[in-house]
Amino acid sequence: MSKENLSFPLKVEEIAQIINGKVDGRKEVVIKNVTGLKEAAEGDISFLSNPKYVEDLHTTKASAVIVSWDLKPISNKTIIRVKNPYFAFSQVLNIVFSAKQNYIAREVHKTCLIGEGVTLGKNVAVGAYCVIENNVEIGENTIIYPGCYIGVKSKIGANSLIYANVTIREEVYIGNKAIIHCGAVIGNDGFGFVPFEGKHHKIAQIGKVVLEDEVEVGANTTIDRATCGVTHIGQGTKIDNLVQIAHNVKIGKNCFVVAQVGISGSTEIGNNVTLAGQAGLVGHITIGDKVIVGAQAGVTHSIPENTVVSGYPARPHQKAKKIYALMQKLPDMYKEIQEIKKKMKKE
Amino acid sequence: MSKENLSFPLKVEEIAQIINGKVDGRKEVVIKNVTGLKEAAEGDISFLSNPKYVEDLHTTKASAVIVSWDLKPISNKTIIRVKNPYFAFSQVLNIVFSAKQNYIAREVHKTCLIGEGVTLGKNVAVGAYCVIENNVEIGENTIIYPGCYIGVKSKIGANSLIYANVTIREEVYIGNKAIIHCGAVIGNDGFGFVPFEGKHHKIAQIGKVVLEDEVEVGANTTIDRATCGVTHIGQGTKIDNLVQIAHNVKIGKNCFVVAQVGISGSTEIGNNVTLAGQAGLVGHITIGDKVIVGAQAGVTHSIPENTVVSGYPARPHQKAKKIYALMQKLPDMYKEIQEIKKKMKKE
Amino acid sequence: MSKENLSFPLKVEEIAQIINGKVDGRKEVVIKNVTGLKEAAEGDISFLSNPKYVEDLHTTKASAVIVSWDLKPISNKTIIRVKNPYFAFSQVLNIVFSAKQNYIAREVHKTCLIGEGVTLGKNVAVGAYCVIENNVEIGENTIIYPGCYIGVKSKIGANSLIYANVTIREEVYIGNKAIIHCGAVIGNDGFGFVPFEGKHHKIAQIGKVVLEDEVEVGANTTIDRATCGVTHIGQGTKIDNLVQIAHNVKIGKNCFVVAQVGISGSTEIGNNVTLAGQAGLVGHITIGDKVIVGAQAGVTHSIPENTVVSGYPARPHQKAKKIYALMQKLPDMYKEIQEIKKKMKKE
Repeated sequence: MSKENLSFPLKVEEIAQIINGKVDGRKEVVIKNVTGLKEAAEGDISFLSNPKYVEDLHTTKASAVIVSWDLKPISNKTIIRVKNPYFAFSQVLNIVFSAKQNYIAREVHKTCLIGEGVTLGKNVAVGAYCVIENNVEIGENTIIYPGCYIGVKSKIGANSLIYANVTIREEVYIGNKAIIHCGAVIGNDGFGFVPFEGKHHKIAQIGKVVLEDEVEVGANTTIDRATCGVTHIGQGTKIDNLVQIAHNVKIGKNCFVVAQVGISGSTEIGNNVTLAGQAGLVGHITIGDKVIVGAQAGVTHSIPENTVVSGYPARPHQKAKKIYALMQKLPDMYKEIQEIKKKMKKE
Repeated sequence: MSKENLSFPLKVEEIAQIINGKVDGRKEVVIKNVTGLKEAAEGDISFLSNPKYVEDLHTTKASAVIVSWDLKPISNKTIIRVKNPYFAFSQVLNIVFSAKQNYIAREVHKTCLIGEGVTLGKNVAVGAYCVIENNVEIGENTIIYPGCYIGVKSKIGANSLIYANVTIREEVYIGNKAIIHCGAVIGNDGFGFVPFEGKHHKIAQIGKVVLEDEVEVGANTTIDRATCGVTHIGQGTKIDNLVQIAHNVKIGKNCFVVAQVGISGSTEIGNNVTLAGQAGLVGHITIGDKVIVGAQAGVTHSIPENTVVSGYPARPHQKAKKIYALMQKLPDMYKEIQEIKKKMKKE
Repeated sequence: MSKENLSFPLKVEEIAQIINGKVDGRKEVVIKNVTGLKEAAEGDISFLSNPKYVEDLHTTKASAVIVSWDLKPISNKTIIRVKNPYFAFSQVLNIVFSAKQNYIAREVHKTCLIGEGVTLGKNVAVGAYCVIENNVEIGENTIIYPGCYIGVKSKIGANSLIYANVTIREEVYIGNKAIIHCGAVIGNDGFGFVPFEGKHHKIAQIGKVVLEDEVEVGANTTIDRATCGVTHIGQGTKIDNLVQIAHNVKIGKNCFVVAQVGISGSTEIGNNVTLAGQAGLVGHITIGDKVIVGAQAGVTHSIPENTVVSGYPARPHQKAKKIYALMQKLPDMYKEIQEIKKKMKKE
């Protein structure tokens, strides 16, 4: 049975084989669903990764649980031992996900409008009412859900997923194994104007957008095209929902950009950077590799690599934590200063 | 005349009957429009709810004004007395709104693509170029505007309104009398990855979304499906535009979630909670019933019921107010400390 | 050769004529592309506006550079001297942009659904799968990309651009030379509810939206219709991506509203105001002409004209800057107060 054709129900031993694990308990039990330890019912498989929740193993109704090699034996519970239970669990989730994908007809729906010079790879699916403009290229096995617009000369690699109602403008280059979620807009005009003789004149945005392989773009996120040149997102970078990425921004590889983050124009971000939710970055700064920016932080200056920052304006996290804790003491501090002044007057 | 067929123009006495009010003045005056006291012109009806604006009653050009039972008599102005003028006004606005809705053809447009096993209730309207995937169920009287996508096995209850270009992915369950505004995305993948052997692996998001009856979802808002289990929004909860609700979040009944709020994964919110604009909540915390979170607040810990919090990090509002007021005095405090130190040195 | 039919390649002297400049160097050199000084290759034209980058003139590979009248002569480099190099550069970018636009077929695509009583001006383009409801008016030369929805009785002026998958609800009035970017939602319901007898009742939003000439609205931005009356955006105001503008907001002329800003209901904003990224404004306040609100600022009160504010809560910028700098000293201040107290006790 090839991995592609797998779907629930599966026996515990079949799952163990997929996730490279060893069964303690009833190998023949049939698993119908995947879920969390607490919500699990009979017929479910679940996992234990964080030792904090080890007690849940005794109360869970799950028929099988994925655990790590070094967990003590559990009586009366069927377990599958693996190296990394969380990763193994994600492999099991993938079975469900892949089974879903098999329902999608690998065809170009008859209502799609396909421009001149369009190249579609083998096994491509394009959903109803998509508009694919002239000279677009789409790699093999890529799935495009209904209602998407793909502008002139854009390219999408192989094995990518474009969910419903996505808008990709002209000259946007998306790599292989990319995922673009519903409602995202890629290649939109950057926000650029030049004042001249008392009026704001629009600066035409004629640059491009490049998303390397395995980039993920969240729902209703917007990524602006460059004025000239390229707005660039590196391989493996994952972007959450409602994020704003301005023109000429460069983001490195394997970054996480969490929901509602805003990155202003021409800012450059290194590799393995995490920007937590609602953080904002001014334009024209540089963020080093492995930087972590806290939620809601306001980054006003460049940040060297391997730094954790938080707060507004963003400062090294240990310092910011101390400052925000002391804000709590401001009323006391104010009172104490007044008392000191009073005492000194008396003396 | 049934309520459904009402539309302007209406006589003052007809309006009074609808809103259960008593007319002082000219019952026969014809009302053509509804608007605010200040903007009103002849032929308009308006309302006075806040006593602060009582003077506007004398200058308004409105032909009739809805007021409360206990307002003093007003000469020369036609008024309708009711228990709650603001609520009565909203009933009058509903007349205009309902009249608009009557224009919508109660049919499935011939360009819609309706999958296999789809169940459509009586009197359902589905607009042009909608794609309804297999095994979707839609309850009676529900209206779906053009350009919507509804994924496999999703359900929408009766008397709901889905505005144009909404994307609802698979296995999303929406109750009765729900309203989903344009561009909203419901059931999108949550943002989950597992690090393993030096790479971030996507965790397939195979859970569901449940929106109970009378939930409202704002334009371009995103509600992620659960990893496993359910992202759940309770009855009567109203969500504004551009809000982000992450995977496995639970929101109780009758909450208000104002524009651009972000709620991180697995956070649980009680009933009658208000989250003001641009507030952000970290994941895995619990917010008690009747909590109010101020605009732009950053909530980093669980909050007990009946608490008002604000600021970053969010603290009890009275405390936060004092702290932010004292920030104003930081320059003075700093100066005073330096002066004290100088004096003490001299002594 | 009319301006409309221009496209690259162009000779340097042809470009000089368009931007009203004077060539120093090789007038016959052929220019094929436009880009920044640093990225430029042979055949590119670039510009120098900021004297800070004058050294780049010597190293750039650009075949020609647009500079200001007063720049010293540069040997070995073909330059075009103009009054305002940045503005001239934007004119050159416009050539590329206009050439792109010429590809668009000036027709109503056969898949469009055009309601009764719709008026389309001369030379209008409407893309595939658009739905134009009854009694809409669209002015001449306006281009509407695929997948847009335009509601009953809405009007769009002449020479406007509506990008793909935009949703415009009923009774929205957009002026001439407006640009609405992909995924924007205009005329959505405002967020209004009235509590009555223990329940939140929706207040129908029956007002309108007016966007004057030359307004630009960013991707996935949401502009709510008024409850009654009008949500109004003045001439030349530019709005970036993912901005939230609530019901009954008024914005004056020539304002900049940067990405992810949120403006609450009924707030009135003057002319030439700048709201930087992620700023939030409470409802029912007034912002004077030429106010600048800093990024992430939280504006809780009305602000007089010509004021720069920043921080949370927003304060005059010079004051806020001092306060946020002193936050840095909070740990020292706290320590000093404790030391002073200790010393005083001893004495």
